[in-house]
Amino acid sequence: MRRPIMLGIVGDSAAGKSTLTGGLVNLLGADRVTHICTDDYHKYDRKERAQIGITALHPDCNYLDIMEQHLERLHYGLPILKPVYDHSNGTLVRPEYIMPKEFIIVEGLLGFYTRIMRQFYDVKVYLNPPEELRRIWKIKRDTTKRGYTAEQVLEELVKREPDSEAYIRPQREFADIIVTFYPPKGVDPAKIDGHLNTRLVLRPTIPHPDFSYLIDNRAENSGIRLELGRDMGKPVDILEIDGNVPEEEALRLEKTIWNHLPKGVPPLNLDRLGRYLDRNEIKHSHPLALTQLLLAYHLLRAYDENATIPFAPPVDALSRIRRQRELSLKEINTEIKRNG
Amino acid sequence: MRRPIMLGIVGDSAAGKSTLTGGLVNLLGADRVTHICTDDYHKYDRKERAQIGITALHPDCNYLDIMEQHLERLHYGLPILKPVYDHSNGTLVRPEYIMPKEFIIVEGLLGFYTRIMRQFYDVKVYLNPPEELRRIWKIKRDTTKRGYTAEQVLEELVKREPDSEAYIRPQREFADIIVTFYPPKGVDPAKIDGHLNTRLVLRPTIPHPDFSYLIDNRAENSGIRLELGRDMGKPVDILEIDGNVPEEEALRLEKTIWNHLPKGVPPLNLDRLGRYLDRNEIKHSHPLALTQLLLAYHLLRAYDENATIPFAPPVDALSRIRRQRELSLKEINTEIKRNG
Repeated sequence: MRRPIMLGIVGDSAAGKSTLTGGLVNLLGADRVTHICTDDYHKYDRKERAQIGITALHPDCNYLDIMEQHLERLHYGLPILKPVYDHSNGTLVRPEYIMPKEFIIVEGLLGFYTRIMRQFYDVKVYLNPPEELRRIWKIKRDTTKRGYTAEQVLEELVKREPDSEAYIRPQREFADIIVTFYPPKGVDPAKIDGHLNTRLVLRPTIPHPDFSYLIDNRAENSGIRLELGRDMGKPVDILEIDGNVPEEEALRLEKTIWNHLPKGVPPLNLDRLGRYLDRNEIKHSHPLALTQLLLAYHLLRAYDENATIPFAPPVDALSRIRRQRELSLKEINTEIKRNG
Repeated sequence: MRRPIMLGIVGDSAAGKSTLTGGLVNLLGADRVTHICTDDYHKYDRKERAQIGITALHPDCNYLDIMEQHLERLHYGLPILKPVYDHSNGTLVRPEYIMPKEFIIVEGLLGFYTRIMRQFYDVKVYLNPPEELRRIWKIKRDTTKRGYTAEQVLEELVKREPDSEAYIRPQREFADIIVTFYPPKGVDPAKIDGHLNTRLVLRPTIPHPDFSYLIDNRAENSGIRLELGRDMGKPVDILEIDGNVPEEEALRLEKTIWNHLPKGVPPLNLDRLGRYLDRNEIKHSHPLALTQLLLAYHLLRAYDENATIPFAPPVDALSRIRRQRELSLKEINTEIKRNG
């Protein structure tokens, strides 16, 4: 038996996690993908959060230990009884039994927060849109789907900023890929007509496809560029895809990714690749399509590699023992302090 | 760090699990005991069970795999996010975070159903009242606390009988102690005025206190008797305590149990020992008190033993590997059959 392949997508509220995930589920096939949102692990419902004065972004507002436990179980292909947070009215309801399928996509706010969580992902993605764009997305979504007014959303954003800075954004460090959709220079994000550019920061922590043909591809309007750079001080590849990339160049990059796909992996459903919703209108974006394809590539690569290695050894036991030791050390330290 | 000590109490619906448990929680102190009811692991709510035509006693109506996982975590002192079944209206609601305390009492219908579950208990008790008495208890409770009519309860009992026989009663085999409260000969159970006798079947699977003084205690009206016997064909001690046992004899047995208690264990709260509710009146029963004391003895004994042995090795890993193997074997067998 194969173990499932797990993709983690982390980003602030309304950073575009669901749009990216939705496309990926389609690409791989809904019957092959288990989709988990870690908002379900909220400790308090909407009313309680208001009373306590805590935001949903704060680690203390989430059962991180239960998340760790469930990620471990999913990683080994074991079922979980997942809590359920109902976003439509902000309440915690009856849990749901989940038996993981071949692929698992875990999206949420704090998915890379602890070391134990991070060890269970095969691919880790961080979504990092400019704050101005994220604000527009959040107002649009929360007023239409979650029963908030625009004023409430803006107020909430101010309230959440310290937690975003302290807990959400530092998780960028642990991602294999950082995805940034952003409007072209000089274009007002509120008026952008769907043609967002994409910047993909590719850390050499997982084996990316060979994009070396792009190194010499320095034509002015090719719309796709690969550059060496640094992210948080460490070397990375930066792949830029413009919103108005010529069809020809987009297809060439697509083909490059295709060519790296291992043989014999499950087929992809390309029907709805790169689609997104803009004011109730379905549109297509080359940068989005190529980003989804790159993520699918990594999942299929891991799926293929995993067919040739034995079932991974259990690690929960190890982390338990480690915790025991940490606890004991802490107790010893307390003891030492107490006795001067 | 100590791991928690776990007591399992299994028995059919309204067999007296909560009365026994309530007394024990009091005895050990509510701040030291975590009390879990496995009814919370029902897969379907009351309405769904009626639609599907399944009883709550059926293994398929319960998330046994999640129960196994949670029992393992509790056994190791790790927190769980426990599902919650609301008996007052028969619905599944928001789960509850449980961090286990020093003692854990797990009561329910199917607590000894699988081998994996059984390995996590330190003491296993099966409650086995005569069916006639259980029927009276069930009508009393379900009509006052769970919103059923007497007719519905009787109908439910008929519907449940095949599952009781197939799934609940066979668990008797795995108990260290089988507890039977029963009316004295010739007394109508509907009219019994609180003076139930108790029969304790003591399997030599755990070290019971030394009751050998009772072997020669064959006086006609001592009210307490120890006899050698067989249960399901295997040798056991049978301890009989009459409802009208003389105070003196009850105290002597109590003292015998006390004398076996290890030194330095947490003190017991004897205030409400042996109390039970009879038609809204609080009464006292020597057989109930002595049964609770014997169970407390076993928990404290295990607690004491556990202070001197290291943290037990993880076993979930092993059971996972075993399951993998079973799965593979199953797949191989299917393959063989398919190919003739």
